[in-house]
Parts: sequence; structure tokens; C-alpha cells
Amino acid sequence: MSATISPLAPKKYPKMPEIDGVRMATAEAGIKYRGRTDVLVMAFDEGTQVAGVFTKSKCPSAPVDFCRDNLAGGKARLLVVNSGNANAFTGKKGRETTALTGKAGAKAAGCSAGEVFLASTGVIGEPLDAGRFSHLLEGMVKAARPGFWQEAASAIMTTDTYPKVATATVQIDGVDVTINGIAKGAGMIAPDMATMLSFIATDAPIAAPVLQALLSGGVGKTFNAITVDSDTSTSDTLLLFATGAAEKRGAPRIEAVKDPRLAAFKRGLGKVLKSLALQVVRDGEGARKQVEVTVTGAKSSRSARRIALSIANSPLVKTAVAGEDANWGRVVMAVGKAGEPADRDLLSIWFGDNRLAHQGERDASYSEEATSAYMKQDEIRIRADLGIGRGKATVWTCDLTKEYVAINGDYRS
Amino acid sequence: MSATISPLAPKKYPKMPEIDGVRMATAEAGIKYRGRTDVLVMAFDEGTQVAGVFTKSKCPSAPVDFCRDNLAGGKARLLVVNSGNANAFTGKKGRETTALTGKAGAKAAGCSAGEVFLASTGVIGEPLDAGRFSHLLEGMVKAARPGFWQEAASAIMTTDTYPKVATATVQIDGVDVTINGIAKGAGMIAPDMATMLSFIATDAPIAAPVLQALLSGGVGKTFNAITVDSDTSTSDTLLLFATGAAEKRGAPRIEAVKDPRLAAFKRGLGKVLKSLALQVVRDGEGARKQVEVTVTGAKSSRSARRIALSIANSPLVKTAVAGEDANWGRVVMAVGKAGEPADRDLLSIWFGDNRLAHQGERDASYSEEATSAYMKQDEIRIRADLGIGRGKATVWTCDLTKEYVAINGDYRS
Repeated sequence: MSATISPLAPKKYPKMPEIDGVRMATAEAGIKYRGRTDVLVMAFDEGTQVAGVFTKSKCPSAPVDFCRDNLAGGKARLLVVNSGNANAFTGKKGRETTALTGKAGAKAAGCSAGEVFLASTGVIGEPLDAGRFSHLLEGMVKAARPGFWQEAASAIMTTDTYPKVATATVQIDGVDVTINGIAKGAGMIAPDMATMLSFIATDAPIAAPVLQALLSGGVGKTFNAITVDSDTSTSDTLLLFATGAAEKRGAPRIEAVKDPRLAAFKRGLGKVLKSLALQVVRDGEGARKQVEVTVTGAKSSRSARRIALSIANSPLVKTAVAGEDANWGRVVMAVGKAGEPADRDLLSIWFGDNRLAHQGERDASYSEEATSAYMKQDEIRIRADLGIGRGKATVWTCDLTKEYVAINGDYRS
Repeated sequence: MSATISPLAPKKYPKMPEIDGVRMATAEAGIKYRGRTDVLVMAFDEGTQVAGVFTKSKCPSAPVDFCRDNLAGGKARLLVVNSGNANAFTGKKGRETTALTGKAGAKAAGCSAGEVFLASTGVIGEPLDAGRFSHLLEGMVKAARPGFWQEAASAIMTTDTYPKVATATVQIDGVDVTINGIAKGAGMIAPDMATMLSFIATDAPIAAPVLQALLSGGVGKTFNAITVDSDTSTSDTLLLFATGAAEKRGAPRIEAVKDPRLAAFKRGLGKVLKSLALQVVRDGEGARKQVEVTVTGAKSSRSARRIALSIANSPLVKTAVAGEDANWGRVVMAVGKAGEPADRDLLSIWFGDNRLAHQGERDASYSEEATSAYMKQDEIRIRADLGIGRGKATVWTCDLTKEYVAINGDYRS
């Protein structure tokens, strides 16, 4: 938690509706932080289905391994999250901690350890003592209540400067269902103190395999399309829980991905995922500007995505945005280094609506004045059209400021 | 050229011997800079062989295209380099400029345009007017003289804070031959004002195909093993010229790559390439520390190299080094995100001789005090052993400081 709140923080928070079958509690266990909550439990009614997406890191944290194992069962009764310690790169001790926490959680929630999900965020390589908070779980499950979303989002923060919540209410076959989500993360990763975590719950009655397909499909253009610093966490965890409570109110149970009654839910889920993903970018360490990078006219969508990420991850592009400099030469460089098919002499580049380069050279007609004014805004759009195909992709990032270096260079000292 | 010289600048410069068959001159053409030289010509005696290696960017500069075309001939009589404008992303105008400069150079040196080589470095996207310096070439070729290496290195600087030269004298079949090189670059790229250029000359009588094989083989562990900010230039150019003048002193003409008499030359060339490459890293924008990253025990050398670059390019690792923080958790993260084969529980990590992590967890016996003292040095070695194979690789980078952001964020404004 930082003293200075990101200038891109939401101006106001949405009212988060309660979701039947979900209850939450937070506690101050003092794992690392003092004077703030650092443990969250989310308890789910019996029958809750679960889906998950995790880091692709080859060195995942112990809780990620634990969740992956349990996901096969498709059922969840309890989520336990702690901040302050990531329980990553902790070897055998790390596995003992997840096993102990799983056991304590199962006892508290009256379920099997296979229905417990865990996430930890904070410093890497420091053994996490389960004893610091496992004794709290029973009381927390008893005290858990609905409508506690904002507090839940606060308990999982690390270097975040604001809690991140999003909600959508959509219909399945004419019946209202709600999707609530929380997230944390202030770098795509800052493994000492951040990593991305997000937990979403809905009362929609959707079977686990369908939920998994929706979640896996939904991350491509949301959480997997954001980057703060190109560094991939050991702990990234995104879980989606469906209590099914809306069935009592007449919502049909959805068992097939192709079910046409899912259309609105899919859009609503996408909206919640995108809102949370953008909130993470907007709280990127040291960020003062949100940057949307769109690549069009590429050979394929896959190619467009790679080029867009090459632009979004380029330190030179990101520092130029920080300096309010529409430095399209650096965008050319980033297109060129992506290694994807490109024809220099067909390339065009826009900052906002200002076309700065056209067909391989500077656009003689662009207005330096209009462009300078545009660069002062806090949401910058960069577009590169390759002119060789129909592939397109959009990704989001933030600028690279001296504060990023200060946050990450001064962190342990 | 910056007012503040990098703290990692060489304490003293080597004496550069003259090389028979190479003469140089510099001039102030005022292309962008005032009060300093910005054009270099290097004239070569007839019979000079040439080899080259260029940027892999899909959006190369016009001079890179020009050199690639001429390289097929294998012969060189003149090199013309300007700083202040990269002649990159300048479309048809860019090609006209290289054609005009090539023609003026050929007239000045009394050779064909196919024996002229060009390089430009500086701002991207700004048309480069050949008329600004083409009229100077004739006089420069006439005035050119040997023993002008330091001045040559100064004329091609952009955001560099010091000129970069290196030399080696080795024997071919008992006869001394000399290898001299100059380089510029203060980012692997900073396309607005940097990009890497290097020119090397020798009096060894080596045929162009052999020269090319030696150069291509030599860059892998030198220029292709350095990274300042992971951004690849549109203009990277490395040329090696062999005048053959040592033949008069009895050196044999080398026509085959496998010739055993090349052994010492190969080592000498490698030494010059490595010295210049490290000087580029040590002048990395905002750099205060040189970082050597070695990966051992990887599945293959290729895999080791990818992991080493993942560590060396990670903003979180680089900011940690800037903060003198032996943050091995971030090294774990960078190993994990490389996508290469790795087993978390076999991983060990050293900073200098301090082993901080062993077999997948913190090394309980490491000394925080010794490590802190080590991190204050200006040359930091990071080693990661994966424990799964015999692949190894070393790359070099610099730290990521607030000055990097200042240099690149405040640049145009």
C-alpha cells in the first residue's frame, strides 16, 4: 500500500450487489503489514463450481500448484488469500504451508481440502508460516457475510494504491444473475510485493467445465492483454466461482458452452474482466498514463498481438509517453524488432487521431501542436497499421516513469 | 553527447596503432549538432575486403539496405558515417540520400558506388539531406590520415558519453597484424538518438568470405550478448574491413575459414568485439552498474541464452541492481517467465560469490552483510544454475535508473 494514490484511480466505486452463496471476512494477521487487513476468506455454499487460470511461469508459487491440483474437482467451498508473503520459491516448506492451510480451511468450512483454494501475494522466497493465520480461519468463516467486496479487495492489496472491484448484472434466460470481481496487482508482476490476483463470483448456475471455457476464453482480450513491465508473476491467479444460487430464482442450469442463453453472461463476464484488468494497468507502479496500443493490418491476429506487445513493452515507447512525447520513431523501432512480417514502406502510425507517419515516412501534414496537446491527456491511444493483412489486436499498458524505478529500486533498501 | 560522463567510462584509453591502408578524416557538417564533428570518412586502399552484420529489424534504415546490397561485392574503398540523423523510416527520400551519398563518395575516392559503405545515426523519420555533407567528401578523402581513431570514434557519438575504441595486435603465421575498432551506442537502441554502430579495421590479408565468417561467428558472444533496454535498433551496423597491407610484411593471404593460422586473429578479433560491446553497455543510458548474467545447467546453450536475456532484460531485476538490492526473487521470476525448461526445486542463484538461493529455496547460510557490500560494487555478476543440463551462456547489461527514464522521457521536450 502506497501513501500516494495513483492519479488514474477510479473517481468513484460501483455499488457491489450481494451474491447469494458467497460470504466474506477479513482479518489482521500481521504477516508483514501492521494496522491493516491481510487475510481474506471467501466462503461458498455447497454446490459452488469453480474455474481458474494461472501464471505460465515455470517457477510457480506453492498456492498455484495447490489450486491447479484442486481445480480438477471443479468444486469450491472456501478461498483463503493472504497478502505480505507470496509463498513462492519456498520449496518443501511451501508445500507444507499450503497443505496445513488447506486442512485448517477444510475444518473451518466443513468440507474436504480438495474444495479449498489458496492464494498468497507478497515477498518471494520467505517461508510463510501457516500458523500465523490458520487459527483464524474458523472464526472468520463463522463471521463471514455477504456485501463485503470493497473490504475483500483491500485485504489483498500489496503495492496497489487502491482496491479494485467490478460488477455486472446480466440475464440468463430472463433471470438476473450477478458477476462480482476483485483484483490486485500493481505490476504485471513485481514479485517482491505484487503479482496479479483476481477472484470473481457469480450466482449463475453454470457447471465447472463451462465456467472454465468462459474464463479461459475471456482472459485473452483482458488480463492477458495487459502488461505493466513485461515481467510475468510466479503467482498470477484468476478464479471464478459460481454458487448457482440463481437457480432458485428460476435461472436454468447451464451445462454446455454452446448454450445460446449464455450470450449475455459471456459479455458481462468480459466486462468485469476488462474493468479489473484496466484497473490493474491504471495502478501500474509509478503510472501516470494509461496506454492503449492497437495494431491493425497485420498478417494475422497472432502477429498483431505480438507487435502490439512489442510496442507496449518497449521501455523507449513507455518513457516517451511519460515525457508526453509522440515519439513515433520508437514505435517504428518496436514494430521492426517484433520479428513479425512487416513492410516498412506500408507502415502508418497514429497517436490518438493524429496520423504522424504514413506509408513508411513522416506524414507531412500532421500538426505538432494538436499532437502535443493530445499527449498531455492521461489516456493515450497508439495505433500502428501495417497495411499487409487483416490481423488486429489491442493491448493495454502504462507509461514508464522515474517513480517505477524508485518503487522497484528503493524497495528493499 | 551528454554533459555527464558515465561513471563506468574507461579510466584510460589504449594507444591505437596505425593500420596500413586505412586513413580517416572528420568534419563539422552541422547536420544536427553544433560545435562538434558529425561526419566521418574512412578511406581504404585498393584490395580492401569487407564483412558486415546488421540489425535484424524488419524496418531497417536506408543505409543498412545500401550496405547489405554492396556487401555482396566484398570490396570496400570508403566508409561514410554521419551522426545526428539516422536516415531511417524516410521512405523514397531515404533511398535517394543513400544513392547520392554513395555517388559523391565514389567520386571522392575514385571507386565505384558499390565499394562505398554508409551508416547514419540519430533521429528517426527526419529526411536526411545528402547536400549537407556530400560536398565535403572529396576534401575529407584528400585530408584523411592514419592514426585518427579517437577522433573517428568521437565523430559518430550521439547520446554516448565517451568515445569507444579497442585494439589488439596478434600474429598470423609469425607476422604481426593489428585489429582496431570503434563503436558508438548508448542503448542497444534509443532510436531517436543512438543505435549501435561499430567499425573495425585490420591490415591482415583475409578474403571477404572468411572475414564474414569470422565476424558472424564473433558477434554471438559479444555484440549479440549485450542489451541495454531490449530495444533493437533500425540501424545497427557492424563492419569489418581488411586492407591486406600486412601481406607486404610477409603475412600469408588467408582464403579458408578453417586455416589454422587464423587462431590468434580470431581470438584478437573476439577481444576487440567484446571490449567494444562492453563499452557500449557501460555507456548504457543512465547506467551506473555493469551487470554480467550467466546461466549454467540449462537444457541447452540456446535455452541458457534465452533465460540469461530474460534476466538481463527484466525491468525488475535491473531496477533492483540500481537500488543495490540482491533481489534474487526477481531472478526466479525472470527464469520462470522465460518459458524455457526449468525445475523450480533445482534452481540456485548467486550474486557474485554469494549463493542466495539453493535447490528451490532461500539459502539459509547466506550472509546479508557480505551480499549488501557486494551490491555496492559497480560490476555485478548474477548467476543462475538450473541444475537440469549442461547449457550455459553469458550476457551483459546495465542497471535501470531514474536517469534512463529522464534521458528517454525528457528527450524531445
